[in-house]
Amino acid sequence: MLRISARPESPLPHPIFQQTEFDSRLAQTRAVMSSRGLDLLILTDPCNIYYLCGYDGWSFYMPQVLLVPVAGSPVWVGRRMDAHGVRLTSCLAAEDVVGYPEHLIQNEVETPFGFIAQTIAERGWQAKRVGIEKQGYYFSVASFETLVEELPGSELIDASYLVNRVRFIKSPQEIGVMRQAARLLEAAMTAAVDVIRPGMRECDVVAKICEAQIGGVPDVGGVYCSTPSLVMSGARADTPHLPWTDERLAAQTTVNLELMGNRLRYQVPMGRTVVIGEPAPVMLRLESVALEVIDNILAFVKPGMICSDVSDETQRILRRHGIAKESRCGYSIGIAFPPTGGELTASLRAGDTTVLKPGAVIHFLPAIWADGGSIVISEPLLVTESGVECLANVPRRLFYC
Amino acid sequence: MLRISARPESPLPHPIFQQTEFDSRLAQTRAVMSSRGLDLLILTDPCNIYYLCGYDGWSFYMPQVLLVPVAGSPVWVGRRMDAHGVRLTSCLAAEDVVGYPEHLIQNEVETPFGFIAQTIAERGWQAKRVGIEKQGYYFSVASFETLVEELPGSELIDASYLVNRVRFIKSPQEIGVMRQAARLLEAAMTAAVDVIRPGMRECDVVAKICEAQIGGVPDVGGVYCSTPSLVMSGARADTPHLPWTDERLAAQTTVNLELMGNRLRYQVPMGRTVVIGEPAPVMLRLESVALEVIDNILAFVKPGMICSDVSDETQRILRRHGIAKESRCGYSIGIAFPPTGGELTASLRAGDTTVLKPGAVIHFLPAIWADGGSIVISEPLLVTESGVECLANVPRRLFYC
Repeated sequence: MLRISARPESPLPHPIFQQTEFDSRLAQTRAVMSSRGLDLLILTDPCNIYYLCGYDGWSFYMPQVLLVPVAGSPVWVGRRMDAHGVRLTSCLAAEDVVGYPEHLIQNEVETPFGFIAQTIAERGWQAKRVGIEKQGYYFSVASFETLVEELPGSELIDASYLVNRVRFIKSPQEIGVMRQAARLLEAAMTAAVDVIRPGMRECDVVAKICEAQIGGVPDVGGVYCSTPSLVMSGARADTPHLPWTDERLAAQTTVNLELMGNRLRYQVPMGRTVVIGEPAPVMLRLESVALEVIDNILAFVKPGMICSDVSDETQRILRRHGIAKESRCGYSIGIAFPPTGGELTASLRAGDTTVLKPGAVIHFLPAIWADGGSIVISEPLLVTESGVECLANVPRRLFYC
Repeated sequence: MLRISARPESPLPHPIFQQTEFDSRLAQTRAVMSSRGLDLLILTDPCNIYYLCGYDGWSFYMPQVLLVPVAGSPVWVGRRMDAHGVRLTSCLAAEDVVGYPEHLIQNEVETPFGFIAQTIAERGWQAKRVGIEKQGYYFSVASFETLVEELPGSELIDASYLVNRVRFIKSPQEIGVMRQAARLLEAAMTAAVDVIRPGMRECDVVAKICEAQIGGVPDVGGVYCSTPSLVMSGARADTPHLPWTDERLAAQTTVNLELMGNRLRYQVPMGRTVVIGEPAPVMLRLESVALEVIDNILAFVKPGMICSDVSDETQRILRRHGIAKESRCGYSIGIAFPPTGGELTASLRAGDTTVLKPGAVIHFLPAIWADGGSIVISEPLLVTESGVECLANVPRRLFYC
């Protein structure tokens, strides 16, 4: 007879971060909570949960939260079947990992947020002013409505991006992980450029990219990226977000690549364009504009500038070439869970007053669609004490095949 | 001087589905809308948007909707930079694809749902009773609050899973695509079983899986899956959702695999367990229980049964072996975008009265964690006129290495 057994298991150490790192992150978060008068944060963004407790599981497709009181230990609440994985891999104490029962899964009448409200009550926390993430992907309207009902004595205050903003400046350990992610990215980009040739199916190019992204290099392996590789040729190369196909690469086309490397959920992206056949004159012009923009920005950015300074400088150069670019030319990066590779805070665009300080990492992406052509040459940039540094080392130019 | 050029482009034909298929899907959706008295549906689930208009782009990380009026053409509204991709690849007419401007991206004051409400007004639709997806991942609380403000004359009614339920029964074309996805799955599972050996890093196993999933077979290539491969060994094998690591596979361990194939966003999953070294006695007992359960269910299921019948039969066998399984033992599958591979409708569990009809596809997943061991042997099943059929052909047993 088989019986269900309890599995008292010692937690596995985090491969990179020590407890002191988690303590520092929590202290920074609490400083912001205090300044906004919040007693409790209910975090639903898996990036923020991972940042504060080190738990990285694919369980965020079901409701789960990290409850962060202004004093006392944070508590994870999620599906009971996932509690063991949280105890095994997070920095939380076993008693601060609480599983809700299975009948709350996909229950169209009762969401798990009733159970979560009950957990808040049981912990005896003051929960007068409670921060929630109204802009998040993994906090549904149904969950919100339950919370409104179940926490009648609490004021629910939008604290979207509160922790995201704490994440903006990376610690030395985090920068070390992002340097490893950059090596995975280099492997992926090299695999793509090596393998692209006319007649090859787009999917076969991506197969080689994924193999390199995840197999990585001998001392660093990759994990899944928060977004799929973008590999577009032909008519699709003039769009930013379509999936690859089974079609064979034409003898004369451009292939726009936007690839990533992800190490322990820290993600570093880059764009490059490959020309198959003779480059159209427009592509050579676009290349020269893109490189001029990037060279300029590498010399231009200094810590203390604000995001819109970088955007203004980029737009100034583009305008000189008669190019109007509506979309932002970059965004902050770091921890990435699906569906986005951005931190959803700083953007390089007019009006963004975020100050670029050492330890910030930005994907500078001056992608250009113009005159029937398009080019995607971008760089992941670390803000240093004196300027910026490219995190990845891939030749910055059009590639040919 | 480079100038932005308009790109009047003929839409690309969908690789599989004809207009008649989309017409039929829309008609079925409208029948349910009418029965609930809904004038308009605001769809935010990318699975439902893809189902009704064929648009499959990685743009759902920013607000986008498909507006489905009870009469007249559906309209996509999303980020302006993505409108070209929608025109190129969906079945919508060019004038029914509307882009909102870039300043609404990551704007903490103003969401794009004001623009969306304005589009509804401009189309002159009756929008008294409006269905929204309150349970969805890609419809934030902030978006909902904007909609409440901007549509004061409308009653917003939860229509979560309305279209998901229409998707439950697959057309012959959809079943054809899922058979192709099953071939990708077989390639992935074969690659994993072939490559697993002691001393290999988990990430290198996954690299080979991804290569096979996406490179596929000569006539069928894959796309990204909605969830990453689950490949867990050692202490992690006793949990369901942790990521793989860089660690080397031990000389004596089990590896639980939950892999998928995804063809044109239709996804077919399967679980298998690989034993490295001598199998512990518990593993042989778990194998025999798992195979007994699956063999029984393959003979047991008939169209017309309800989901809980299948769950009751599974639980009956497990109980006979002294195993209590809290979690459901399967769920409906089909179109899958991150973060889940399930359709979020039918579940094989007590109380689920969904009728299993020909054309339904279920992931039957009687994963067992017991006596310190765990086994994941599962099958994707198509309900036929006379019973069920395994969509994928992979030996159903423990694998050894």
